[in-house]
This record gives sequence, structure tokens and C-alpha cells, in this order.
Amino acid sequence: MSGQERVVRYPASVEHADAPSPVLLVCEHASNVIPADWGTLGLAGGLLTSHIAWDPGALGLARALAQRLDATLAHAPVSRLVYDCNRPPDAAGAMTTRSEMHDVPGNTGLTAAEKLRRVTAVYLPFHDTLHGVIADRLARGRPAVIVTVHSFTPTWFGVPRLVELGVIHDTDARLAHAVVAAAEGCGLNVQLNAPYSASDDVTHTLKLQALPYGLANVMLEVRNDLIATQAGEAAMADRLAPIITRAVAQFP
Amino acid sequence: MSGQERVVRYPASVEHADAPSPVLLVCEHASNVIPADWGTLGLAGGLLTSHIAWDPGALGLARALAQRLDATLAHAPVSRLVYDCNRPPDAAGAMTTRSEMHDVPGNTGLTAAEKLRRVTAVYLPFHDTLHGVIADRLARGRPAVIVTVHSFTPTWFGVPRLVELGVIHDTDARLAHAVVAAAEGCGLNVQLNAPYSASDDVTHTLKLQALPYGLANVMLEVRNDLIATQAGEAAMADRLAPIITRAVAQFP
Repeated sequence: MSGQERVVRYPASVEHADAPSPVLLVCEHASNVIPADWGTLGLAGGLLTSHIAWDPGALGLARALAQRLDATLAHAPVSRLVYDCNRPPDAAGAMTTRSEMHDVPGNTGLTAAEKLRRVTAVYLPFHDTLHGVIADRLARGRPAVIVTVHSFTPTWFGVPRLVELGVIHDTDARLAHAVVAAAEGCGLNVQLNAPYSASDDVTHTLKLQALPYGLANVMLEVRNDLIATQAGEAAMADRLAPIITRAVAQFP
Repeated sequence: MSGQERVVRYPASVEHADAPSPVLLVCEHASNVIPADWGTLGLAGGLLTSHIAWDPGALGLARALAQRLDATLAHAPVSRLVYDCNRPPDAAGAMTTRSEMHDVPGNTGLTAAEKLRRVTAVYLPFHDTLHGVIADRLARGRPAVIVTVHSFTPTWFGVPRLVELGVIHDTDARLAHAVVAAAEGCGLNVQLNAPYSASDDVTHTLKLQALPYGLANVMLEVRNDLIATQAGEAAMADRLAPIITRAVAQFP
């Protein structure tokens, strides 16, 4: 594609912008939509609905949490296969050529111009929108606590994962520890920094949107078999909403 | 002013966008321009050209450095009295009501709507532009090293300051230490984290633009009596350019 053409931009979708909760829910892997310009990236249909294209259930869970917490939700409208908004532009995973055991043909051998087009179309508009939402709160003197919502696949390279709720932090671990404490006795297998941790480069949004402002923040990872249906999403939200509320109550 | 009116946006001015140096120079306090909408903020003319409105000499020095290093320069086109781009929206100093010993009448009792207008007009466009410049480099696989350029007044509340070059860091001190080492024997009074340090909340740009990407970064503060003329700016740039080059050479 020519560098001259006008790039369509895909900002974050923001729901309940004026909701009163201090919590700002963020869902970077909400969508498996690949805009027409990028075709199917060479992938078969089944893969385009699998966890390599998005975090199945994460948007449904995030919306159910937004409702229960009366919180703002920002989510990315484009598949992470086009650009993973939770990765910086120089990360291998930003426009990945391979996810779990699957090659992504449409991401192989990308030119600098095509990488820039995706950065301009997806990454920058997503994070610019999020910066705007956060700056708006700070300017109004309203608190902001960043909670990112993800899901992970129950098996990874054939190995089952026992963790059900992963609670992940970057250099500011306050809210993560508060969530783990608040989750005690909730009946889920809760683990800190599992199945991923900051060393896997999964905390870019926290680094970019929360740490510069000193905002309490955490990344939640829910095993996607537990939120595979709308009823599952609702049940998980019923479980997590009071945990988040208790944990967040410790922050001004 | 009504929240309905269209807000004029003032993005960072970017010079030498395609320059080859890894160094990206940033000058948040480059300008003492107050757009007509904000009048004089109630200040007498003399104050509008003093250090409370901008960092005198910083833009001239940054431009002279950009030329010598063959580096990109991004600078803010609006006075920090309207919005200080090196402060987050909830900082008292973002739209300060008092600078050194002077009240800023036009910043007293700002409504949330007026704060938001300034955030939207000045803060967000500046940092969105900078994010774009950095993302562009990272997507191209080019290195980026962030050097912010400031000046400070030789006396503060009547007390003379002896430091001539301040080298300031946030949590990543690598480049600051490299600059101090490279400056040895340069003939200037060089001090680490003086006359300000991160605890004075002066490292917002470093937190927002460099730390999330793991980019080497430093804030330079030059005493403004040394760069009060174009000749002074040129002489200081002649001195600093090789120091920066030597320090930056240690980073991939």
C-alpha cells in the first residue's frame, strides 16, 4: 500500500465516558475485526475467531464489569493481529508473525511503510484516546485507577493452565497485591503474575497510561473457558466486581 | 469560555523530522507565546518575557544542538503559563497560579471546563505529537534517545545558583550518569539532579515518552545567563554537543 494514501484511524471505543467509578477499564484485545484493507492476513476463518486474533470473552466481561462498577470502558476496535495495542512499535509481538503455533502470513516481511501505517491507524489513535480520557479525569480532579481486562487460553502449546485469574503488575504492584488479597476465598485459582508477567512484555498499557501519572493499576487475565458464554461473562463479573471494588477502595 | 466552542489545538512543532541522530531533542518550555484567547493572563509585559513564561534561551540552544547533532527537535509552541507540557493535568504546576514570587491572575480559580480546554488545546496535542515521532522511529527500527532541554534562572528567590549545567534523571539514570561522566573537564559547574530533581515533579516528559519504551533519557538544565544571546547559545551548543554525542554513543 502506498504511503501517500490517507490512513483510516481506529481510536479506542469509549463507553460510559462520564461514569462515576474511579476505575477505568481497558480492553486492548477486545476485537477480532480485521478492517478490509488487511484482508484475512492469510489466516483461515477458524483462526480469525480464535484467541490468536483477540481475547475471547474479554470485551463481554469488561462490559459486564463496567455495568456493575458503573465505570468507563475503553476498548480497541481492531484485532491484535493487525496491531497489538498492548505492545510498543518495536516489539516483535506488535505485528506478530507467529502466534502460539500459527504463522501469520500477512504479517511476514512487513515494510517500514506498512508498519508505520498500522502504527498510525491503530496504535497511536488507541493510546491517544486513552491519554485523553485519563487527562480529562485528572484535569477535573477525579481519581483514576487503571484495570486492564484480558483472557488467556486454557491450553498453551498443549499444556493445560490451572490458573483461572491472573493478576499482573509492572513496577507499581500496589493494586495487584490488593486484588489478590481481596480475592481470597473467592473460589478461583488466583495467581500473581501468571500466566504472564511484566517480563513477557505484557504491561505496555500500564507503563504508558498509568505509571507516568502515578495511577494505581493492574492487569487482569481470566481463563477464557470461564467466560465462553454470556452467562459465564456475567457470572465472572459478579465474582470480580466486588473484588475490584474492595481492592480499589484502598486508593484515594 | 463555553465548552461548546471548537478548541484550537497546538501540537508540538517538529523540526528536522528525518534527521539521522538517535537523539530526539525536546523543549517543553520553548515559547512565551500566549494565544489571543488567553490575553496576558493578567501579567505585566515584563513578566511575559521572563523565565516564568518560558525557559529563555532553551529553544535557541536546542536548535543549535539539533544542527550540530543532526537531530530531530520537538518543541511546544505555547507558554507554560497557559499549560506546562512537562506537568500532568493534576499537578499544581500544570496551570500554575504562582511562579517564583509572582501571582498569575489569569490562572486563579480555573473552572474544570477551562482546565479541560487547556489540556485539550496544549497538553494532549504536544504529547500526542511526541508519541507519534517516537512511534515512527520505533516502527522503522531506528534508535531513539530522549534529551529534554531546559534553562533555569541564575537567582531563585534572590539566592544565586552556582550550578551551570544540571543533569536530571527519573528512574532510569543511565544517560544522566553518562552525560555527567562525558562532561568531566568541560569547564562548567555540572551537577546531577540540580537545581531540580525528579522529586520536584519535573520529569513528566521522561516518564511519559521515554520510560514506557525503555529509551535512554535525560533532562538538561542550563543556567540562562549563559545562553542569553545567540552567541551564548552557539557557544553552549559547541560545548554540549560533543558531550551528548559521547554519552549517547554508549546506548544501542
